[in-house]
Amino acid sequence: MTYTVQIKVMPLKDLLDPQGKAVMGGLQNLGLNNVSDVRIGKHIDLQVDAADKEAALAAGQEAAKKLLANPVMETFDVTIS
Amino acid sequence: MTYTVQIKVMPLKDLLDPQGKAVMGGLQNLGLNNVSDVRIGKHIDLQVDAADKEAALAAGQEAAKKLLANPVMETFDVTIS
Repeated sequence: MTYTVQIKVMPLKDLLDPQGKAVMGGLQNLGLNNVSDVRIGKHIDLQVDAADKEAALAAGQEAAKKLLANPVMETFDVTIS
Repeated sequence: MTYTVQIKVMPLKDLLDPQGKAVMGGLQNLGLNNVSDVRIGKHIDLQVDAADKEAALAAGQEAAKKLLANPVMETFDVTIS
């Protein structure tokens, strides 16, 4: 069966996120002054052929660990919808 | 109250996603041959000060529409966790 594995890769909380800061400036210029923080990461959808949900989740974890996330700067979160 | 609004911005299904194709090649080189498709988008976390959940969601929708997503190439999805 084919599972859709969703991987969310975000910059670590303690690190500066210059892209997020730039977007926050843009939102304030547009008049959205109630936004106090913005952080920007990646969202990756994988179509995984696997026998069951656990195997698909394991493939997603492996993909995130080996290729998609840099553990020095990012955290990741793998889910199946 | 401060709400965390999550915005997922993904390339439209009908469009090519060259970044996703490159990642799929990388995953296959790593031996993850059970991945049949990869699509890569953005994930944005906003901290929004709002009176209630609906107002926070509306602010997120407005931010996505006006600044974060390009409707010609991308779809977006706003949720509150």
